Amino acid sequence: MQREIKSASGLTKQTSQWFAGLQDSICQALERIDGKAKFKEDTWERPGGGGGRSRILEQGAIIEKGGVNFSAVFGEVSEKMQEKMGFPKAHFFATGVSIVLHPQNPWMPIIHMNVRYFDLSIGKAWFGGGIDLTPHYVAEEDARFFHQHLKQVCDKHDKSYYPEFKQWADDYFYIPHRQETRGIGGIFFDRLQPDAKHSWDDCWAFVQAVGEAFVPAYAHFAHQYSQKSFTEAQKQWQWLRRGRYVEFNLVYDQGTKFGLETDGRIESILMSLPQFASWQYNHQPSAGSPEAKTLQMLKKGINWAV
Amino acid sequence: MQREIKSASGLTKQTSQWFAGLQDSICQALERIDGKAKFKEDTWERPGGGGGRSRILEQGAIIEKGGVNFSAVFGEVSEKMQEKMGFPKAHFFATGVSIVLHPQNPWMPIIHMNVRYFDLSIGKAWFGGGIDLTPHYVAEEDARFFHQHLKQVCDKHDKSYYPEFKQWADDYFYIPHRQETRGIGGIFFDRLQPDAKHSWDDCWAFVQAVGEAFVPAYAHFAHQYSQKSFTEAQKQWQWLRRGRYVEFNLVYDQGTKFGLETDGRIESILMSLPQFASWQYNHQPSAGSPEAKTLQMLKKGINWAV
Repeated sequence: MQREIKSASGLTKQTSQWFAGLQDSICQALERIDGKAKFKEDTWERPGGGGGRSRILEQGAIIEKGGVNFSAVFGEVSEKMQEKMGFPKAHFFATGVSIVLHPQNPWMPIIHMNVRYFDLSIGKAWFGGGIDLTPHYVAEEDARFFHQHLKQVCDKHDKSYYPEFKQWADDYFYIPHRQETRGIGGIFFDRLQPDAKHSWDDCWAFVQAVGEAFVPAYAHFAHQYSQKSFTEAQKQWQWLRRGRYVEFNLVYDQGTKFGLETDGRIESILMSLPQFASWQYNHQPSAGSPEAKTLQMLKKGINWAV
Repeated sequence: MQREIKSASGLTKQTSQWFAGLQDSICQALERIDGKAKFKEDTWERPGGGGGRSRILEQGAIIEKGGVNFSAVFGEVSEKMQEKMGFPKAHFFATGVSIVLHPQNPWMPIIHMNVRYFDLSIGKAWFGGGIDLTPHYVAEEDARFFHQHLKQVCDKHDKSYYPEFKQWADDYFYIPHRQETRGIGGIFFDRLQPDAKHSWDDCWAFVQAVGEAFVPAYAHFAHQYSQKSFTEAQKQWQWLRRGRYVEFNLVYDQGTKFGLETDGRIESILMSLPQFASWQYNHQPSAGSPEAKTLQMLKKGINWAV
């Protein structure tokens, strides 16, 4: 059920329908890739308007815990949203797909994707989204593959997108109190709107391309790493890295903050948290170890797409 | 090394010396109770002035991960502190002891204690602190014991303290997005200053009594539960409850927020996080189970001290 608001782009219906289909196709692809577990679906309604479909897969062969969420919500901009997000008093419509996958195998990366559309009845609308990768062990060839893949997707729409959105991801997925990036970044963008060069259709085509870029990237890593053997120590390192993921998501992630502060559906918001995470006091990997090398690559400004 | 600031209470030296001694005596007592592991100490200096001693015990017989931190820091109130804490531009002096202990055994509770003194060169000073308990399984007799113990400590100083500080703990140790309290609460107080009934010495004596109330409470639970056998399912429940502890500390805890936002020593601030924590999508304990009963008791306003 969707209330039509006076839309700046005229895309409220198209976007939500396409995002719902994207959730379907990604879940099908991930079940095929995983080969063992199936997604469980919870549909929910938002008291103020709209709702969503949360799909969670737990204890798969490849995915330990993963969520692929779709939502399309609308209503009045609450006082909290006005205060926290700087939005005006208006009606809003918001739709999108959010994904976080925590793998079983420490050689597999954690992956996150989000594509979203937001519309305000005062005649403003925009797209946002991105894909980023959090390997427990950073391998340079993987980082290059991932960023080249994203650069190709971006370059088809605007050559300026990748450099801009790559830097945005570096800045956004950063843990100041650890002075490290969450992972190797990717692309992140918000408030994407038509300009002199791009129409609403152009923006929408780009966002769809980002949504479609997810499965090939994940399939690549699943093919490469899901069968690779690992030690107990490598598993422990994975748990420690997940601890950092938890720190980022609970302390800094704007989507999580927005959800917690606007009484969103808590189990859908926190599906991003891993099944297990670990903290060890002042853990320092030994010099020259693969863990120490990983930490050295968790910084902003590395040009991976060369 | 401590710079003397024009102190409202004249207690800057006394408090920090006594708190350092409290850390010593509590660590000695906890090592005796644990019987296996020893605290490791890291001393650190704060670039702006002062420093601390972080003491961490990992993989003990009873304590899986615990920290007992002392600090005494001073300097200028930074712009961030002015903005985030509403402090005026002044010199400050702050000292205290903070403890969080995560036990091995799921029948043992998580315990937290903090006593602190804060002084501003504009002629203001105050005490703060508290003790609270987060059982993985709430047993009513334990909650009664704990609250009666705290009430006795409070009543010796002011009969109004326990009811006021108990409610403050209920309100403070609350996870709004889960609509549950972190545990069974305890006492929490801040901005404790002399008034018509109490001098600085009275306030200080009360804070010392809170500091000294910690070991007997913990010894009671260690004696009672540290040898009790448990199942794998009970251990998993403990990890899930620790997940909530992580959520509270990273999202709401003012001390953690203050530390992260003022570039505190990160490993000391986050010593409160457990070695392992877990999240499971939409976990619901079966009706009537001990886990479900625990959730029913994680609410504000239960009068445990009767």
